Amino acid sequence: MEQLHIDLKDHSYDILIGGGLLQEAGALICSLRPKARAVVLTDDTVLRLYGDSLSQSLAEAGISAAFFSIPSGESSKSMDQLEKLLNFMAAHRLTRSDLLIAFGGGVVGDLGGFAAASYMRGIDFIQIPTTLLAQVDSSVGGKTAVNLDSGKNLAGAFWQPRLVIADTSVLSTLSRREFAGGMAEVIKYGCIFDRDFFAFLENCPDRSALMAYMPYIIRTCCDLKRIVVEEDERDTGHRMMLNFGHTFGHAIETIGSYQRYIHGEAVALGMILAVAYGSLAGVTPGDFADPLARLCRRFGLPVTCDIRPTELVKHMTIDKKADGTTLRLILLSQPGRAFIQTVTLEELTTAMKQLDHIWGN
Amino acid sequence: MEQLHIDLKDHSYDILIGGGLLQEAGALICSLRPKARAVVLTDDTVLRLYGDSLSQSLAEAGISAAFFSIPSGESSKSMDQLEKLLNFMAAHRLTRSDLLIAFGGGVVGDLGGFAAASYMRGIDFIQIPTTLLAQVDSSVGGKTAVNLDSGKNLAGAFWQPRLVIADTSVLSTLSRREFAGGMAEVIKYGCIFDRDFFAFLENCPDRSALMAYMPYIIRTCCDLKRIVVEEDERDTGHRMMLNFGHTFGHAIETIGSYQRYIHGEAVALGMILAVAYGSLAGVTPGDFADPLARLCRRFGLPVTCDIRPTELVKHMTIDKKADGTTLRLILLSQPGRAFIQTVTLEELTTAMKQLDHIWGN
Repeated sequence: MEQLHIDLKDHSYDILIGGGLLQEAGALICSLRPKARAVVLTDDTVLRLYGDSLSQSLAEAGISAAFFSIPSGESSKSMDQLEKLLNFMAAHRLTRSDLLIAFGGGVVGDLGGFAAASYMRGIDFIQIPTTLLAQVDSSVGGKTAVNLDSGKNLAGAFWQPRLVIADTSVLSTLSRREFAGGMAEVIKYGCIFDRDFFAFLENCPDRSALMAYMPYIIRTCCDLKRIVVEEDERDTGHRMMLNFGHTFGHAIETIGSYQRYIHGEAVALGMILAVAYGSLAGVTPGDFADPLARLCRRFGLPVTCDIRPTELVKHMTIDKKADGTTLRLILLSQPGRAFIQTVTLEELTTAMKQLDHIWGN
Repeated sequence: MEQLHIDLKDHSYDILIGGGLLQEAGALICSLRPKARAVVLTDDTVLRLYGDSLSQSLAEAGISAAFFSIPSGESSKSMDQLEKLLNFMAAHRLTRSDLLIAFGGGVVGDLGGFAAASYMRGIDFIQIPTTLLAQVDSSVGGKTAVNLDSGKNLAGAFWQPRLVIADTSVLSTLSRREFAGGMAEVIKYGCIFDRDFFAFLENCPDRSALMAYMPYIIRTCCDLKRIVVEEDERDTGHRMMLNFGHTFGHAIETIGSYQRYIHGEAVALGMILAVAYGSLAGVTPGDFADPLARLCRRFGLPVTCDIRPTELVKHMTIDKKADGTTLRLILLSQPGRAFIQTVTLEELTTAMKQLDHIWGN
């Protein structure tokens, strides 16, 4: 088992990573909070596959838990589901000393975290992420949110978990596409912080080779994220580096109505575009485009797209990182090193025109 | 003008109190945040009475502001209104550098504060409280919330304003009942922290006498609240003192469906009940019951009630301060000094039986 300790100003917690941890979840939670009652938020897919395992583990540890399951998919990340969940927590008479357990992928973690942050103005929550994306990316950072009609993740809170339990065995049931989506974030960490880690990934020929190193891979990503989050908990500066590929990626997701490309796929395309943008601006070595595309393709990520760069611009202005007139892009100065570039809308538009045929269409 | 500085761990801000401050609001906000755009949350009553004044003041200072008005009353403190407001903020393309201005009473402050805490995971907000209750009680403490079907204030956040502007002139348009509701909280501060302040209030024969001292009164209450909030921002210990009269009061409000008694009226009845409870338990001097009832009556608060104490018990268990099996009551050891008493449900039930005819019915 790999273990990582996150130490924030007001809050610290552990991330436990390893195969088979789900069976130990009850005991782990019980040792942390012996008398707490819990509401478990999950989704229909995870409930069907792993609900019994968690339920049994909690029962054996003597934890009283009620399950609340949402339909799988991004549309559950809504104010409507948030309200239903909060009412469910109240109906089960959860007090400030009790727990919410978020058992699922990113949607469950984001919704559950926001519910925990909001219920009685904040109760503790435990993350049991079940997708690669959630294990790599949602375990650290404390970002929780739901979507509004006006945009993704527009309502939320910064709220840290008490404990993260990442069972790598459950990743075996992920579809090829979901696994690839998680790999986009894994590759991102190599791009922005750690060239050696990028090289390590290049040496894994396929998914099964990766699986053998999964606790190490997840720990590495969480640890890299930890460094930035510890110094920038509220996301006002250095943490923006984590947005590499995301500013373009969010626009791609929006245009595709969150259906055509899943988050990780859009991030992969966004990273490719950010490297191309950097090359064009003369700040990123042009010869990094090929290895990046090759690695993305190997793990099932798209490297070409039916949305042209010029279409993205109008979807990029309302961004939490934008101050209204300029946009901050994350670019690479070299593989393994990122920096923040402030660009005007005009500069962005010009560059997108020059890159408009990047996908070959 | 009275001024008070609130100094919390991560956050500090000023409360400005005085007659006619509304006309200066634009300039004050502009000096704090010169380029910010704003959404103003208000309610239909405040909009009708004072909307033009604020709008003009903001325009003169060059602040671009869009008004979002909700129906007056507690039913607007809902997840539904929260979602509408957040979408309105997004439609006006507010970024993290912009502002929400909460211009109204407690409902507007609670809803607006929660919206500011949630929008893009938190933007700054400015309080312009327009009721006595809001000026006295919502200016300090950072508690924001909406109601759920399951109970009052069950979803919310701790979120501090950047600035509070309390214009005491606007209190002149409050109805007798609303003014009385605010006085309940004013009297509470005398009861729990400051016997001299209680005596000062006893020396004010009527509302117009109070009005002459209003900036002093509001400043005193805010300052007393500041002391506890600064040492207990997250409401886990000492801050509970502020709940004097509220644990009983919330139950009275709930039974009356938030219609029969407004918040302050229920708090007044709750304070009378808490003093009676303390006398019965031998911890509160019995001769404080009369002066308290006299002061409440003078400013238009009820001192008798059609809900019997035994009815309250079952509505008192789901309380954010409860750990599930016991309840913490705030009692007085003497006028001007409060303490926390942990009681079991059995003890509470027994005492309520003994006090069941306190209202003379």
